[in-house]
Amino acid sequence: MSGSRRVQQLMEAFRCLPGVGPKSAQRMTYTLLQRDREGASRLADALLTAIAEVGECQQCRSLSETAICALCDSERRDRSVLCVVENPSDVQMIEEATDFQGLYFVLQGRLSPLDGIGPAELGLDRLEARFVAGEVQEVILAINPTVEGEATAHYVASMAREAQLSVSRIAHGVPLGGDLEFVDSGTLSHAFAGRMPLV
Amino acid sequence: MSGSRRVQQLMEAFRCLPGVGPKSAQRMTYTLLQRDREGASRLADALLTAIAEVGECQQCRSLSETAICALCDSERRDRSVLCVVENPSDVQMIEEATDFQGLYFVLQGRLSPLDGIGPAELGLDRLEARFVAGEVQEVILAINPTVEGEATAHYVASMAREAQLSVSRIAHGVPLGGDLEFVDSGTLSHAFAGRMPLV
Repeated sequence: MSGSRRVQQLMEAFRCLPGVGPKSAQRMTYTLLQRDREGASRLADALLTAIAEVGECQQCRSLSETAICALCDSERRDRSVLCVVENPSDVQMIEEATDFQGLYFVLQGRLSPLDGIGPAELGLDRLEARFVAGEVQEVILAINPTVEGEATAHYVASMAREAQLSVSRIAHGVPLGGDLEFVDSGTLSHAFAGRMPLV
Repeated sequence: MSGSRRVQQLMEAFRCLPGVGPKSAQRMTYTLLQRDREGASRLADALLTAIAEVGECQQCRSLSETAICALCDSERRDRSVLCVVENPSDVQMIEEATDFQGLYFVLQGRLSPLDGIGPAELGLDRLEARFVAGEVQEVILAINPTVEGEATAHYVASMAREAQLSVSRIAHGVPLGGDLEFVDSGTLSHAFAGRMPLV
């Protein structure tokens, strides 16, 4: 126990961060207070500003400090292709890894009736409105292949088919650099079922 | 790239934390903004309060929000034994692991002339004043066994000997649960030189 109550409080506050246990929280606290108070004050400011200003884009439900986010607002994006993801971080991952030029829709979760998460909580009414509005021609599902994710993907896919849009899903299979020996059986059976003709 | 500038700024601000790379910073940012804004605001408050209030104990140089820290101020501590450590976190470690009942002195670093860190920067003048004041009878050195730490320990030890105090140093050797096969040669030779008679 450190004698300082403020130091203890800061250590406890760091525990809200994902992956930060007591040891890391202690290290972060002492490092900032001893060596980087400027960084600590920048972090506090960035937190307060983000909490106050960052909300949800009214179009894609991603994180944004403006009513419509920069991506949805960009004139260079292809408005006929819509990629549906679970989380705002997925948008960033796809932007960094691919050359996808369409727009996104962020569900902010997946269907989970037991937890009270139904279509309304995922904004599926808004997504359906976009499907029938006529601008979107193609839907790409990039929802995680968990049990609940599969259910969500099926639900969104049937909505898209009803609106007569073409629907595809990103491939799930053996990761690059992966070894069949270490891949779980679910992934392997998925990879087999989703095999592609070699041309 | 996320479209939101505030989100980006928060990710960058998280990088000031030790052990936090781009991936962790991203995860922290999205987790807090999506799921734990209350924790984020508590963290911001704790940071600002700690920066504003936590300074240095005038007696032991540990982190404290009062002029004299709770440990130095406690009447239950043995004022005749003084343990010299490098960092405020070392105080916490010793308090948690041992039943040491004396007081501490925190150097906040180690002698490193090339970096401009001399005796004055470590508060050794203040430490010497405590050595000669008469209250302290025994000095325990818990300075890390690095090259600069060794030099610092020797310097403090000679100061203590001049004031006719008994000086000891915590044992450095093979850690509990350690295996000789994986211990570095420096530690092993240290452990050999510091062997204790079995009684």
